[in-house]
Order: sequence, then structure tokens, then C-alpha cells
Amino acid sequence: MSENPAPRRLWTAARPPNLSSQVRLAQVGDHLSSSSSSAATAAAAAQPATAMSAPHVTVHWLEDSRAQRIVWLLQELGIDYEVKHYKRDPKTLLGPKELYDVHPLGKSPTVVVRNNGESVTLAESGAIVEFLIERYGADKLAVSPSSGSMQDRADYLYWLHYAEGSAMLPNMLAMVFGRLPAQAPWFLRPVLQSVSTGALDKMIVPRLKAQYGWIERNLEGKDYFVAGKLTGADIMMSFVAEILDASPVNKADFPNISRWHTAMVQRPAYKEALEKGGENNMGRFTQRE
Amino acid sequence: MSENPAPRRLWTAARPPNLSSQVRLAQVGDHLSSSSSSAATAAAAAQPATAMSAPHVTVHWLEDSRAQRIVWLLQELGIDYEVKHYKRDPKTLLGPKELYDVHPLGKSPTVVVRNNGESVTLAESGAIVEFLIERYGADKLAVSPSSGSMQDRADYLYWLHYAEGSAMLPNMLAMVFGRLPAQAPWFLRPVLQSVSTGALDKMIVPRLKAQYGWIERNLEGKDYFVAGKLTGADIMMSFVAEILDASPVNKADFPNISRWHTAMVQRPAYKEALEKGGENNMGRFTQRE
Repeated sequence: MSENPAPRRLWTAARPPNLSSQVRLAQVGDHLSSSSSSAATAAAAAQPATAMSAPHVTVHWLEDSRAQRIVWLLQELGIDYEVKHYKRDPKTLLGPKELYDVHPLGKSPTVVVRNNGESVTLAESGAIVEFLIERYGADKLAVSPSSGSMQDRADYLYWLHYAEGSAMLPNMLAMVFGRLPAQAPWFLRPVLQSVSTGALDKMIVPRLKAQYGWIERNLEGKDYFVAGKLTGADIMMSFVAEILDASPVNKADFPNISRWHTAMVQRPAYKEALEKGGENNMGRFTQRE
Repeated sequence: MSENPAPRRLWTAARPPNLSSQVRLAQVGDHLSSSSSSAATAAAAAQPATAMSAPHVTVHWLEDSRAQRIVWLLQELGIDYEVKHYKRDPKTLLGPKELYDVHPLGKSPTVVVRNNGESVTLAESGAIVEFLIERYGADKLAVSPSSGSMQDRADYLYWLHYAEGSAMLPNMLAMVFGRLPAQAPWFLRPVLQSVSTGALDKMIVPRLKAQYGWIERNLEGKDYFVAGKLTGADIMMSFVAEILDASPVNKADFPNISRWHTAMVQRPAYKEALEKGGENNMGRFTQRE
């Protein structure tokens, strides 16, 4: 990628719309594999990207990341898509440098959306979910500004932003502090173990309990987060429920979250998405020793 | 607030629409003060909330927080609003318990929007910005799904979510690790100082440089983040620029960010908002000793 891309339209300047992801990703080596939704492959192969009228989405999917929910979303929306798979470094747990060819910050999920000769590269889960649903969902999965009540739209936007805002910060702190002792030289580990335990007990676990308690109360007597139907809010919040498995709070304390999440993972589209992407193992980020 | 609120519409159930914030906040003591936009006060006083046809917004504003940009937004939109001020505990730096009466997670900013007899309480900066702009901005500050290019809308949503997603995590880690030594008993401080320095140098500062470098490149030759005009993206990103003052990276390395931020703070609406809310001092979160 150019060191000095054109100032405006940074992403498209760095990756011209007509450069297919297949071409770019052919360089990244054999630890990448690709799986496509059945309808997508034929359609994408039949005509060049610039002539397409139906949307086509490429999901850059890193294992054990936030990317799987985007595959689920695409499956629910019924859009043609393909998944490009990337593996984490087993030692550092970081994504591979090839992801930096897709997005300058190496983010996953990143999607490339092609439609009517236009191509857009987009990162940040919340932005991807909003963008795809408002553009290709019709009323499916959406709570649009014009339909429904003011309260429903506010709730919808709230959960979309909350899922990567207030909800994730204590989870990320739990990961960082949980891994702290193992990353130190051996003679510092006892001290860092006590620092880690102290930070978790005093600062992080209370916040996690507050966040998950709040989510729990919002799912009381409800099958979905907003408007009595599956929306982007459920898609975004699915990762917050998933990471609860690896969290230092007790999942059994949140039966509504478990009930709701169980219903989500039993959806046909969710199961199909697991075959196209893959199951997350978030536990690897919080192994204490 | 009830321990067991009604299952649906949790916020409005906890705070009935007709209970004015003036009534609720009258209990919270003299460390709270209130300032109103001139037009707002008269309008709000003249008629009860249920009969209002023009929107009225109450901003629950905690000092040195993300709330100030919402005051700026309201000033740019020209909506009637009032600001309820809260102070942090000088020792713990946490917000007061009165904020939990406004929002169950004690969040600031939280806004209460009253319009046509409906009342909505909303937290999460990104959700507030989206909601207010799409509902009351007309084309002002908005990049709507129907106007403009696919790229502009994608960029708009990206920055709205990025500002509290990828951009803030390393900043929050910098705060937590920066304050770590001062929070430990004296005999552990030398060890924790080296842990703090190590985490900052190896993990946090490189990430901060990557994030701010990315923002810097996106502002190259541009006066605004998206679509060549002031939008919600600039409002959201203003806090990311502000917190750069307290960040362990060198602000001078990011001249485009400084140039853009200087232009923002010189806007009449920004200055007016400072008088209604107040100037942030983010440096207090990163005092090392």
C-alpha cells in the first residue's frame, strides 16, 4: 500500500475499486482460505465488479474476533458474500500483517461492499451493521428513523453504539489485566498476579457486573433487544454475550442473556454463518497462566 | 429508582416522561448548577412537556467528560436545551451517584429528549449524535443514507463509531496504566512504575501513534472529516482530539489534527457551548504521581 495515499477518499485511493480482493489476497499465503456463500460465488464470477447491480460483500474475517457477527448479518440479509479467512499469531494473538493491506489499521471485521460499480471498504462493526442494514435490509433487521416510535429508534441506536462502547471497555480491561502476569519476567509474576487480581476485583469485575446486569434487565421478558424483532442490535450484542464466556463474571448470574443468546445461535442463518466463517474461541485471550 | 423496573422500556419506566428533570434534580444538592440556552428556558417554562411541539433537550453534563461535545452539537443544531452540571469526586474522579438517577449506568452524557409529548432518555455519545442529527438536523450536520455518495455515508458512519470504538481503547488503557503506580501502596510503586512504563512503551503508545497517525492522514488537505462540511463525524471526533492533550504521544506530530481542531474550537457555536457547559481538563486523568 502506498505510504502517501491521496488525501481524500483514503481507503479507495489505497485500494482502487476495480482491484478485486481475490487479486490482492492471492499474495497473502496459504494460511488464508476462502469460503463463499453458494449464490455469491457464481454471481461474482459471472461478471466484473463494475457491472454488478446486486451488492456483493467481502468479509475480511480474523479468527476469534468480532468478525463472525458480520457473517451472521450477511446470512440474515441474504446478500451475496464471501469470507476471507485470516489466522492470529499463536504467540502474540495479533492478526497477520496481511490485514493491513485490507485496512490501514489491520482491523477485522473489514468489509468491501461492491454495488453498481461503486466499491466501499468499511471497518468498525457498528458502522458495518448500520450501513448494510439501512442499504440492503429494507425493513429487515432495521429500526429506521421514519418507521416505529422515537423510543424504538433511540433504543436501536443505543445498543448499536453501546456494544462497542461502554460494554466492551471493561471486557478489554479484563483481558489486558488477566494476561498481565504471564507477560512479565518470572520474578515479577507474584507481584503482577496481585496487581492483576486487585484490578480485576476492585475496578473491572464490578463494572462487568454492572454492564451485564443492565443487559440482563433489558432482556427481561423479551426475545430481542428492540422493537420485538431481530434487528442490528441483536447482531451487535451477540459478541458481548459471546465474550461473557471468557469473562471473570459468572454467566449463570445472567439467565436472560443466556436464554436470548441460545435463541440467537439456534437460528438457521447463525448456523449457516458458522460454516462460512467459524466458531469463536474467546477463552484463549483470558488464559491466566 | 426501582430495583425491579418494568421489563420493557426500562428507561422510561424508571423515569416517567412527565417527571421533569428539574423535579428530579432538585434533590441532588448544591454542587449541581444549571444553565440554559436563552431560547430554551422561556419555551420550556411556558408549557408542560407533554404539550411541546418543538424538541427540548436536557443534557446531563459531567465535568471533564464526553458530554461537552453534545452541548456543542445542540448549539450547532439550534435546538432548545438546558445543561445539568455534575462534579466528579476529586479523589476517585468518578461521577456522583445522582447520575445513576438519570441513567442506570451513571453515564454522562445522557440526554432527555422531549418532543410532541414523547420523552426519550438516551446515553452513548454516538447514539445521541446520530439520533439528534437525523431527527432535528434536516440536512445540517448530516450525511443521510439517501443524500450523497455511498462512500460519504460509509465514512460518516465509520467516524461516528470509530470515535468511541477503536480510537478510545488505547486512550483508556493509557489512563488506567498511567495511574497504576499512584494507586498502589508505596513499597510497590517502583515495580508498578516499571510495569506502567513497559505497558505504555510496548503496547499502548504504538497503538496511539497508529490511531492518531490514521486520523492525521484522513485530515490531510481537508477542513472536515466527511463530505466537505461540518457533520456529526467532526462532533464525535472532537473528543478524540481533545484527549490527545493528555495522551502520552506528542501532539506536535499531528499538525492536521491540530489545524482541524483549532478551526472547530473557533466556531461561534463551540464557544457558546463552552459557556453553557464548560471547558474540559482531561489532564487530571493522567497525572502520573
